[in-house]
Amino acid sequence: MIHASLDDTTGETLGFAMEQLLVAGALDVSFTPLYMKKNRPGVKLEVICHRSDERKLLEIIFRETTTLGVRISESRRAVMTRELRQVETPFGPVRVKRAHWQGVVKESPEYEDCRKAALRAGVSLQAVYQSALAQTDTEGEMTE
Amino acid sequence: MIHASLDDTTGETLGFAMEQLLVAGALDVSFTPLYMKKNRPGVKLEVICHRSDERKLLEIIFRETTTLGVRISESRRAVMTRELRQVETPFGPVRVKRAHWQGVVKESPEYEDCRKAALRAGVSLQAVYQSALAQTDTEGEMTE
Amino acid sequence: MIHASLDDTTGETLGFAMEQLLVAGALDVSFTPLYMKKNRPGVKLEVICHRSDERKLLEIIFRETTTLGVRISESRRAVMTRELRQVETPFGPVRVKRAHWQGVVKESPEYEDCRKAALRAGVSLQAVYQSALAQTDTEGEMTE
Amino acid sequence: MIHASLDDTTGETLGFAMEQLLVAGALDVSFTPLYMKKNRPGVKLEVICHRSDERKLLEIIFRETTTLGVRISESRRAVMTRELRQVETPFGPVRVKRAHWQGVVKESPEYEDCRKAALRAGVSLQAVYQSALAQTDTEGEMTE
Amino acid sequence: MIHASLDDTTGETLGFAMEQLLVAGALDVSFTPLYMKKNRPGVKLEVICHRSDERKLLEIIFRETTTLGVRISESRRAVMTRELRQVETPFGPVRVKRAHWQGVVKESPEYEDCRKAALRAGVSLQAVYQSALAQTDTEGEMTE
Amino acid sequence: MIHASLDDTTGETLGFAMEQLLVAGALDVSFTPLYMKKNRPGVKLEVICHRSDERKLLEIIFRETTTLGVRISESRRAVMTRELRQVETPFGPVRVKRAHWQGVVKESPEYEDCRKAALRAGVSLQAVYQSALAQTDTEGEMTE
Repeated sequence: MIHASLDDTTGETLGFAMEQLLVAGALDVSFTPLYMKKNRPGVKLEVICHRSDERKLLEIIFRETTTLGVRISESRRAVMTRELRQVETPFGPVRVKRAHWQGVVKESPEYEDCRKAALRAGVSLQAVYQSALAQTDTEGEMTE
Repeated sequence: MIHASLDDTTGETLGFAMEQLLVAGALDVSFTPLYMKKNRPGVKLEVICHRSDERKLLEIIFRETTTLGVRISESRRAVMTRELRQVETPFGPVRVKRAHWQGVVKESPEYEDCRKAALRAGVSLQAVYQSALAQTDTEGEMTE
Repeated sequence: MIHASLDDTTGETLGFAMEQLLVAGALDVSFTPLYMKKNRPGVKLEVICHRSDERKLLEIIFRETTTLGVRISESRRAVMTRELRQVETPFGPVRVKRAHWQGVVKESPEYEDCRKAALRAGVSLQAVYQSALAQTDTEGEMTE
Repeated sequence: MIHASLDDTTGETLGFAMEQLLVAGALDVSFTPLYMKKNRPGVKLEVICHRSDERKLLEIIFRETTTLGVRISESRRAVMTRELRQVETPFGPVRVKRAHWQGVVKESPEYEDCRKAALRAGVSLQAVYQSALAQTDTEGEMTE
Repeated sequence: MIHASLDDTTGETLGFAMEQLLVAGALDVSFTPLYMKKNRPGVKLEVICHRSDERKLLEIIFRETTTLGVRISESRRAVMTRELRQVETPFGPVRVKRAHWQGVVKESPEYEDCRKAALRAGVSLQAVYQSALAQTDTEGEMTE
Repeated sequence: MIHASLDDTTGETLGFAMEQLLVAGALDVSFTPLYMKKNRPGVKLEVICHRSDERKLLEIIFRETTTLGVRISESRRAVMTRELRQVETPFGPVRVKRAHWQGVVKESPEYEDCRKAALRAGVSLQAVYQSALAQTDTEGEMTE
């Protein structure tokens, strides 16, 4: 995880940097609003990445933002195992992610599939979500 | 400390999760607004807990929220020693926490006691606080 | 201007709603973090639009989000007059917006032009910006 | 709508004020993080209320918070008409709100009913929600 | 009240703009974190001012920030009447503001006086506050 | 790095604490808005410091804020090497920081120099920045 506090980078530049970091392999990129000295609204940039991508992502951060130094920390992770199944909805096929962790099971329809189905069918994103979740008891085709 | 970044959990669900985590032994639970990819306002969930409660709290997080993975980190702590004393105010008894750390001493009236006294007496919370702080020089009964 | 406070809509859904609102003619869409009752992190949605687009945008808000009611207010505007000029940079042509208001003049390179030039040339967004601004004294071709 | 900007009121006091304002008839109360002068993190308090409750709520704001002046503004509202129906889920009965606005129809299970059913059955809040939404096609008993 | 949404102004520039606006007569200046399109963290600038200062403040906003248009709205105000009294504390004299509104009375020590007394005496800001508030029953010299 | 979560400290007090921490040697101090239990808006305080200053800064945090315990963590840092050069602008001399990291080079004018030049010349901060950046190709006098 790479952290940097920024008070002299514009929102436009940050949006561009997020795009670059995701393309370059960052697992997750987020911004948090920050109150900095001299009444400056700032932003904390946090990038989660594999250690092997660290150097490449640092280069983007140093090139695109105005930061002169970042902090790097490691942490343990607890993750759910997951698998993708495809279900049929009245709005077309949608993949649903099923995740497990020690007895906890949950399912979440894939955003990009729901988004496309909603735009195609002219219904709300929620309508597709609900519809996909309602199908998760019926047998789906295992994908991934 | 357990961290998770969430962009597909509603505020209602988060309020419910906070309630569950506190009941299950979390020392502190907080949310921070987060800017995530694809223009999504998200929330960072942070839970501070004893290591022995980690498994139980992870189960709540995985069950109640949509996160598929969390990060876990450890940190040193510096804490003030504290003791509770009871003082009498015109609005009824209020416990006051006295805290010490290497020469620094400070006192803070217990929120729940002040809240109850304020509601009972029909005065503002501040009025009870000030009143309790004004009594902290007089001798109080040591409790807990 | 249309305002809605949301505590039971996910970040994913909000990102999708922003996309829909911009496509449907909203002049500007933004989210602000909000603290709502029962410990719920919420979001305030603000949409700026021409009055003629109000009905169409309300339909998207009611369909895509969970809100049951929105507030609508009007306000005066003070705007700078603007014109677009094109300048040549070492990284390719970039349009620069020149804005005037009662003696105040300022120039800002177009984000999309800079973004494309930066990606094409493999330099930072800032490098293109600076380069475009440095050209604004020289005579450019007037566009739009 | 009543707005106040606060930089010298604690979070504890604000939580107490929110509780008081909701009891006294406020339709909605929310806080937004604010950056104020002299590097002070502040909070914007927004209260939505019927005009007839304005005086009573102003009294709470002036008594409980440190603000010395508030702003009051009016706005139009666009609201969906709504009705409550009760559905049966495997976790017990849950009321579902059905809302209409010019062709847009949507349904949302009542939070408090879902919360109670989830705690009683030992399942996640989402499980109850999904279950209630899945029943909304079957005929329910009309309430309220 | 003047509002502007900014996504291409740096925190440094905003801190400078706040300083300029306060010098030029703004009653209050604040920033709120904003989520804007294309994953850009932005800032909403809000300036409260007398109508007679509007033009002067607009000039600063247009000159110092990148905004090309602002919104201006009016609102009613409800304010407490106030008077300043001076009290003696063990850390020196401190002015205390006493405010009234229809039966509500509250007192708040002046920040700048407390700040100076705390720095001079080497005690915490809270110690001076509490001390000043404890004196507010005793007769003080009326100032201003 | 020292972290503390605060829900009963006012914005005024936090502004004062930031001032004290910077004077006492903190490398960086920032606040992040936080949602805490019981509907309390809170603030996360983060202080970056050399380990040798830790004890002195903890004393300020414990004395000035209401926190009873803080967390302390270490992290690796990646920093750009930097050097200061002075350039001449039409608004006076401005120092420009030039930073290097493995092939990435960038330059940023010193805020305080630009601020003073802008105030002295009656131009915008941006005008001074742009002017200083435009000079960075010409030979400047190496300082520090």
